[in-house]
Amino acid sequence: MSSEKAVQLSDGIMRQDRKLSDGRTISYYDSEQVIREAKDQRPVENRPGLGELRLDALTNEWVVMAAHRQTRAFLPPKELCPLCPTKPGLQTEIPEANYQVAVFENLSPSLADPKAEWELPVLAGLDTPTVDAAGFCEVISFTDDHDANFGSLSLVQIRLIMEAWRDRTREISKLAFIRHIFPFENRGVEVGVTLHHPHGQIYAYSYLPPRVEKMLQVAKEYFAKNGRPLLTDIIARELKDELRMVAQNSDWLAYVPFASRYPFEIHIAPKKFVANLSELSDLAAQSFGEVAKEAMQRLDGVFGIEMAYMASWHQAPVDDGHDVLGLHLQITSIRRAPGKLKYLAGSESAMQAFIMDMKPEQSAAQLRDVKI
Amino acid sequence: MSSEKAVQLSDGIMRQDRKLSDGRTISYYDSEQVIREAKDQRPVENRPGLGELRLDALTNEWVVMAAHRQTRAFLPPKELCPLCPTKPGLQTEIPEANYQVAVFENLSPSLADPKAEWELPVLAGLDTPTVDAAGFCEVISFTDDHDANFGSLSLVQIRLIMEAWRDRTREISKLAFIRHIFPFENRGVEVGVTLHHPHGQIYAYSYLPPRVEKMLQVAKEYFAKNGRPLLTDIIARELKDELRMVAQNSDWLAYVPFASRYPFEIHIAPKKFVANLSELSDLAAQSFGEVAKEAMQRLDGVFGIEMAYMASWHQAPVDDGHDVLGLHLQITSIRRAPGKLKYLAGSESAMQAFIMDMKPEQSAAQLRDVKI
Repeated sequence: MSSEKAVQLSDGIMRQDRKLSDGRTISYYDSEQVIREAKDQRPVENRPGLGELRLDALTNEWVVMAAHRQTRAFLPPKELCPLCPTKPGLQTEIPEANYQVAVFENLSPSLADPKAEWELPVLAGLDTPTVDAAGFCEVISFTDDHDANFGSLSLVQIRLIMEAWRDRTREISKLAFIRHIFPFENRGVEVGVTLHHPHGQIYAYSYLPPRVEKMLQVAKEYFAKNGRPLLTDIIARELKDELRMVAQNSDWLAYVPFASRYPFEIHIAPKKFVANLSELSDLAAQSFGEVAKEAMQRLDGVFGIEMAYMASWHQAPVDDGHDVLGLHLQITSIRRAPGKLKYLAGSESAMQAFIMDMKPEQSAAQLRDVKI
Repeated sequence: MSSEKAVQLSDGIMRQDRKLSDGRTISYYDSEQVIREAKDQRPVENRPGLGELRLDALTNEWVVMAAHRQTRAFLPPKELCPLCPTKPGLQTEIPEANYQVAVFENLSPSLADPKAEWELPVLAGLDTPTVDAAGFCEVISFTDDHDANFGSLSLVQIRLIMEAWRDRTREISKLAFIRHIFPFENRGVEVGVTLHHPHGQIYAYSYLPPRVEKMLQVAKEYFAKNGRPLLTDIIARELKDELRMVAQNSDWLAYVPFASRYPFEIHIAPKKFVANLSELSDLAAQSFGEVAKEAMQRLDGVFGIEMAYMASWHQAPVDDGHDVLGLHLQITSIRRAPGKLKYLAGSESAMQAFIMDMKPEQSAAQLRDVKI
């Protein structure tokens, strides 16, 4: 996206952009004055081609066909981890010998820059054309410590990650074909994680993902009727009911949602409505780590094991719903007991009708009871 | 639903209804003249209570809270299988010493008959009331042979299962609070199966599941614009393109959908549009087994292992869309290679945006190449 440069961000955080051998940009986010100038010494390899966007005519939903991704890395051993810093004898995705937070375009992206005029086709049933899978997929490495995990990171480190999320949301929004930006983390082989190094991803879509489309429509209707953002009223309900609260500070609230879909689901929302990560105040950006760490630690504490989870940032689309659809992080865990997972089987997968085996008030109480 | 009685169905198939100790009905479907009169000798146990339907206000979707189900059977050993026939020393859910196909209400249903006046609340955001989880959940045991699987069953046996599906669709439709009926089979521990005995389930919802709501809306729009059911045109496309076809006979077509969401996804649809299982002609009911068996055997043949799958019947809702939304079976497998599963991680779970690692034409060719 950008060529070699340095950008001053909030709270003294610096971003430095460098190029990888194959032309991808890598961005380092640092809280300290340090020059990132290590060169990617790997030979230039051809980048994979673009996938396709095909319309599922039964639902009018786009499906990404990314057949070029079949050969991607799958649980490489620690000594070959592509997210660890480069060291003698091992050239990874990250040329520096150490780093704080690094973001770079995915080597085998599901969605990529079409590099040409691109428009999402108008829906026309079976006559809808198939187009290049325009979008953007980035990896965000949370730390250079292979054995860390999000909940164990320092507040400084989480502040850096937050700044990277804000910055990427701002930067990727500038791409003309991007409609929605989705930073997320999958943790645990139970949810298909292919690299153990603590990291997240940022998917930027050239269409509204089905869930965003639905949330946007519901949020618009709610605002039109009530004059307030839906999430504002949800937070008020959670603060009043108290039963589903998990953690809070002055800026953030963590709670199990009233109609949770997973045995352990936690939403973390800013108490003051914002549409997206880039609109967060510096103060809120700073204090997120405290509540996030507590929520993650409580999650791991329930069964005394590292819980497999997905942590997903929901925000307003790039160009719609900024007054109505509020930023929040949805953490879902599929573990319902030490030896038992919640599977998305027939009802959830084929019908999208969720069945929960545990009441939200019950899982919130279990989360609150964890000694941390 | 019904008390002790015998009903003559199509093609000489007989249904006999009996009561289990706790009041649930068990229905036997037989292709031969046989009297089902074995008594359930188990002591009467209290049935679990009803769950709740809570509204997820972010999406206006209902979520079933079935906290009373936590203790349900989990992979019992074969000698304690509750779907095997009753034998000396083991009283199962099925009192007979042998059977062909048996259907009974789930012991721990997610959705159950509210036994009283019940209405789905009007959606009103956070003010939407929580109500009893009205609905109906049945188990359909495909055979008394614990070690069989659907693809290995005889055509006579599959004809019986089809008749049971048709009959249940017809019978459950009579319950005033039922809006949608969903027969399905999950196979394999990879998709959370808790009983190995070959069986399916029938979930009947008191609300339109989100995916049905979407498919109904899309099908209505398509019909209004084109004057034909969407599925009719999809089948015409598949017959013309040929690339994604897997199997067919005079009444049924099996194909990988144009925008498949799973590494191996097969749809099986009647060539002549019908809204639901009960509207299938006797001829189509009879000839389904041939195509279904072939599709299942091809699925197992791809990697030479029993594929984990979900097989889900999509049909029109009970009281809507009968001219526009067509019956079809959606079989999805999450296995993308012998040692690799497709996980519904961040993009699929949180955004409902599906990413496929394999082109439908590629998986269809692999399925066609299987020697059976």
